[in-house]
Amino acid sequence: MSGLSTSRRRLIQGAGVGAGAVVAVGAGFAGGRASADAADIPATDDGELVDLNVEHAFYTGSHQAGIETPQQRHTVFMTFDLTTTSKQDLQVLLARWSAGIAQLQAGLPVGSVQPTNPSGVPGDTGEAYDLGPASLTVTLGLGPGVFDDRFGLADKKPKLLADLPQLPSDRLRPELTGGDLSLQACADDPQVAYHAIRDLARLGRGTVNTRWTVMGFGRASAGKGQTTPRNLMGFKDGTRNVKEPAQIDEHVWLDGTDGEQAWMSGGSYMVARKIQMNIEIWDSSDITNQEQVFGRTKGEGAPLSGKKEFDTPDFHKVVDGKPAIPPTSHVALAAPENNDGIRILRRGYNYTDGINDLGFLDAGLLFVAYMNDPDSFVKLQTKLGGSDKLNEYIAHIGSGIFAVPPAPKKGHYLGEALFA
Amino acid sequence: MSGLSTSRRRLIQGAGVGAGAVVAVGAGFAGGRASADAADIPATDDGELVDLNVEHAFYTGSHQAGIETPQQRHTVFMTFDLTTTSKQDLQVLLARWSAGIAQLQAGLPVGSVQPTNPSGVPGDTGEAYDLGPASLTVTLGLGPGVFDDRFGLADKKPKLLADLPQLPSDRLRPELTGGDLSLQACADDPQVAYHAIRDLARLGRGTVNTRWTVMGFGRASAGKGQTTPRNLMGFKDGTRNVKEPAQIDEHVWLDGTDGEQAWMSGGSYMVARKIQMNIEIWDSSDITNQEQVFGRTKGEGAPLSGKKEFDTPDFHKVVDGKPAIPPTSHVALAAPENNDGIRILRRGYNYTDGINDLGFLDAGLLFVAYMNDPDSFVKLQTKLGGSDKLNEYIAHIGSGIFAVPPAPKKGHYLGEALFA
Repeated sequence: MSGLSTSRRRLIQGAGVGAGAVVAVGAGFAGGRASADAADIPATDDGELVDLNVEHAFYTGSHQAGIETPQQRHTVFMTFDLTTTSKQDLQVLLARWSAGIAQLQAGLPVGSVQPTNPSGVPGDTGEAYDLGPASLTVTLGLGPGVFDDRFGLADKKPKLLADLPQLPSDRLRPELTGGDLSLQACADDPQVAYHAIRDLARLGRGTVNTRWTVMGFGRASAGKGQTTPRNLMGFKDGTRNVKEPAQIDEHVWLDGTDGEQAWMSGGSYMVARKIQMNIEIWDSSDITNQEQVFGRTKGEGAPLSGKKEFDTPDFHKVVDGKPAIPPTSHVALAAPENNDGIRILRRGYNYTDGINDLGFLDAGLLFVAYMNDPDSFVKLQTKLGGSDKLNEYIAHIGSGIFAVPPAPKKGHYLGEALFA
Repeated sequence: MSGLSTSRRRLIQGAGVGAGAVVAVGAGFAGGRASADAADIPATDDGELVDLNVEHAFYTGSHQAGIETPQQRHTVFMTFDLTTTSKQDLQVLLARWSAGIAQLQAGLPVGSVQPTNPSGVPGDTGEAYDLGPASLTVTLGLGPGVFDDRFGLADKKPKLLADLPQLPSDRLRPELTGGDLSLQACADDPQVAYHAIRDLARLGRGTVNTRWTVMGFGRASAGKGQTTPRNLMGFKDGTRNVKEPAQIDEHVWLDGTDGEQAWMSGGSYMVARKIQMNIEIWDSSDITNQEQVFGRTKGEGAPLSGKKEFDTPDFHKVVDGKPAIPPTSHVALAAPENNDGIRILRRGYNYTDGINDLGFLDAGLLFVAYMNDPDSFVKLQTKLGGSDKLNEYIAHIGSGIFAVPPAPKKGHYLGEALFA
């Protein structure tokens, strides 16, 4: 409970005064406020600062940025359909996007904002002109369509790249599904992320059409240490995520020893899902139900077998004759201990689409995960979708799968080795 | 051109290498990159930091926060329809919302995130539990419907509160128009702003239904000084905005000397408009057209009669026999010099709704403005909507008008004086 400033303590007391005053106009009100006492106040470091001028290199020659990179606060994810059947058009597109991403990650425009020729059309749309790099990363994915019979690249197809099978939780909408190419921009400023995708879409005009998109937000790190972000169900999401370099090497990267296409060495696979949450129904459910669904406490995020967020879940612990962590809970179903050690690197963001036709809040999670075998996702989601208690409150409405090539060296472009 | 770090200079050079390499795969590419040379790099302070733990007081006893407050980076705006006809229900709602806003602005939950009773329903949805206040402000507005015959408050109706007339640029959609009540949450974290509106909507359940909402973003201040934010047309928006306290006193606040309802003293009026921009059509227009539409340069944002952003526009300056600033430009049409001194305090945000049915980017501006006479907006918009060259590229699709009461003192609630 560090970092609770004097001003915050004062305000907690002030809120009590406000609650008292309010009782005069209606009963049943003070209770809600009164419960928000000091015990409910989480630790927050005073003076938490976000540096908006961090740059990530593009021409690493190894992995693309935006996967192992510490998760930024905002994302714009978009998929595209190729409208060309020319292999050279695809090459030019990937080269243009590569040079564009390199500029954008450096905080630079992709063309002139202010052309000197009076009849010139600005090469960059300009809305991020003075905003700095803001930790921007843009990560490219190649969908199964790149390797169909349009471009003569079938023999270069990544070994494990295939459309996902029908999964138990699928309520997929065709307009939110698929794509020949994907771009995920992540940044600590939403306007920087949006500008990147907008200008890359513009660079691709005539070669690609937009397909589906999600704009997402989340705060992943706070103050001095990593704080696990919370989803819109109010629970921490990512406590057991893959974080250590050795784990990432084992579960995320292709390394040339896996019988995979040589040009994919240093790359990965990415699965994206738009998961709609019925948050107002969730909000009316009681704390025991909510915690049994996740298998964790809500405030601390501790497994129901333990006390602290990072306590290792004990799936064998029994309390009052029942497992402390229900076998149907999300943490039990997804745990590597219960799935032959399967792990995926999740990089999800919350989203909101405002209000739906029924007047309810329309919101959810853009689930994005990287892994060196997409079957890891299929196995986990088959299990989760089949019996996860969470399914009463969510629906998978969007989906895509993409091969993620390695980053180029200077003088080269994303996916160049595909055409060698 | 201060603050261009060594690392950024290095990356500018690096980008040149990338562009050169790309020429190998396709002609017509290098030109776009090559133009993004050092002259195109705006000044950005290195190490720009956003402090996410700033708190704004609620019980000021004078003006509501979120109007004169330095503009935060994110907003969630929502309007609501009252489903009750009981005056007491309305009082209870305003009291609950007031106590809730006081908690939220202090970075506190509105109820228990982790109830101790196992069958208790969490009083707060929890997604902002450990995020801090993040400069949150929530500003309440009362629409014309509050003063219709449902609540017996007709004699307390703010003198100038009335539905806006049909305006020349209107393409209003009924589902994005009106509302008996409005809440604008602004914060430097989108999850904090979303959480505030979500939990206030929840506190209002049974008394209000949601009507329309917009989530917006924008970066308003950078580093050491104010930087004018850019809209999604890439132009600075707000250079001549009302900023000085004396201007705000003159143009924004009701002060009891204006024949207005006494309970509104210290309050204001607010107009909200959802303005859709056809940004892809805009992006294909040339720089001269773009600058003639706004009456300003794109990069610097200088009036076309001057050199620097904050140069006062000279509407009488003639170049080559024509006005330097076209009389049909946005800056000329909206200038106080050309409108009997009318000024309004704008507090707009960019928004995106993703991709529309035609595959185009669906985006625009949530225009929010505060003023002590809503006729100021009507006069300006009548002029802009009638002849603004910008109208080829925009459509006003959402609209609302609200009376903004003053903030309560401790022990009281928003709008309480209305019921005295």
